[in-house]
Amino acid sequence: MIIAGINAVSEALKGNITVEKLYIRKGLFTDKINSIIATAKSKGIRVVFEEKIRIDARSESINNQGVVAETTEFAYSSVEDILNARKSNNDNRLILLLDGIEDPHNLGAILRVADSAAVCGVIIPRHHAVGVNDTVMKASAGAAAHVLVAKVPNINDTIRYLKDEFINVYAADSSGDDIYLSDLTGDVAIVVGGEGEGVHKLTQRLANRIIALPQEGKVNSLNASVATGIILYEALRQRRKNSNEKNDKSKDSNGDLK
Amino acid sequence: MIIAGINAVSEALKGNITVEKLYIRKGLFTDKINSIIATAKSKGIRVVFEEKIRIDARSESINNQGVVAETTEFAYSSVEDILNARKSNNDNRLILLLDGIEDPHNLGAILRVADSAAVCGVIIPRHHAVGVNDTVMKASAGAAAHVLVAKVPNINDTIRYLKDEFINVYAADSSGDDIYLSDLTGDVAIVVGGEGEGVHKLTQRLANRIIALPQEGKVNSLNASVATGIILYEALRQRRKNSNEKNDKSKDSNGDLK
Repeated sequence: MIIAGINAVSEALKGNITVEKLYIRKGLFTDKINSIIATAKSKGIRVVFEEKIRIDARSESINNQGVVAETTEFAYSSVEDILNARKSNNDNRLILLLDGIEDPHNLGAILRVADSAAVCGVIIPRHHAVGVNDTVMKASAGAAAHVLVAKVPNINDTIRYLKDEFINVYAADSSGDDIYLSDLTGDVAIVVGGEGEGVHKLTQRLANRIIALPQEGKVNSLNASVATGIILYEALRQRRKNSNEKNDKSKDSNGDLK
Repeated sequence: MIIAGINAVSEALKGNITVEKLYIRKGLFTDKINSIIATAKSKGIRVVFEEKIRIDARSESINNQGVVAETTEFAYSSVEDILNARKSNNDNRLILLLDGIEDPHNLGAILRVADSAAVCGVIIPRHHAVGVNDTVMKASAGAAAHVLVAKVPNINDTIRYLKDEFINVYAADSSGDDIYLSDLTGDVAIVVGGEGEGVHKLTQRLANRIIALPQEGKVNSLNASVATGIILYEALRQRRKNSNEKNDKSKDSNGDLK
């Protein structure tokens, strides 16, 4: 896989992706570039300096900022890996299922917000959806290197399996309950639909609950990555609030003042 | 301006944009297309049926789904229009300032979430930023036709003016106070920065407060439209909670049970 751009390459060097070779535009000397070169050298990665025209050819249409890395293919995780991943600040799991995201920029933006919102992992279908490719990696600003992503043959089978593992599955659809009146704490998997159709009806029927964002406008449709970001951050807000309240309670039992 | 695609054209026909001529691909008969044609005819708009190749040439690189509208240029509003706009569910104003968004897809996604989150209007700078063009209109799924957008020569002058009008100005930057511990109710303008640099330092200094999204990941940078969506929806959540509590209190004074 080709990763291009300062942020994406920096994160790839720090993350789970193996960089095999690094290409830098000749004559480029900035702090960020030097730091990328230093990290690469410390890991024994070969660094090659090339003319702009050759660097641009390597990254094709992606804006590379003079930095291109050749890596092993993106290593997908398993659903088990995701179930076993616990984020430091959350005792409970937050998992994201994407029911057919096709736009690589949307998937990149979603992986970025999944990283920030402490999601344990993202599950995507094998068919009719974009996988983690070069464009996704770049759009994720490198976050894709830090987020566990599992690719499954059938989202509905995975939902049945998650429910057997006592994960509450909530599907997002405008027909659902207001997310601000819904409890998103605990072990939860959130299902978000693709750009066109949203979450498929059968998939919605498998969910424990349908949740919706309140919409007060005239058009009332949101970009898939924006909607996903809002839902994940509402889950994060509720979890943080819960854990703060728990901390307050434990202070009480120690006899401290409220 | 050229607007292309089923949603964008439908919304343009309903919104503040004047459609001058409608082009439909020959042989296309679906409920949505028929409804667009009926609306156009009821408004006296000329409808022309053309071969695919001509329709595609009109919309250039934008995926048109067989529907292209020729409209008057996007009509920008003034900052006064935005200050005078009150959304039904909000006594208090929520205004969005964009400090240099350059990607039309981001601006489109932002206008979409601004519509859904009942924002009074969006203020963008005249220079070093994208305006409302064809790509933005399409990416906004037509929401751009319903959101007031003002273009100003200088964002900082506008912030000074808003503060004189007793609007609290909050700039988003990772150095700021946790948005979940910040009061976003009342008359508030939120400033969000561009894709690269974020909100400029001078602009941050003019703000009444700096606010930040908590970030629990390894990369901790969000796509501009995703970050804007999360902040606007947190403001909406707080406003709705406030107005529900007010309603509950007025019930109390009528002697109703809590």
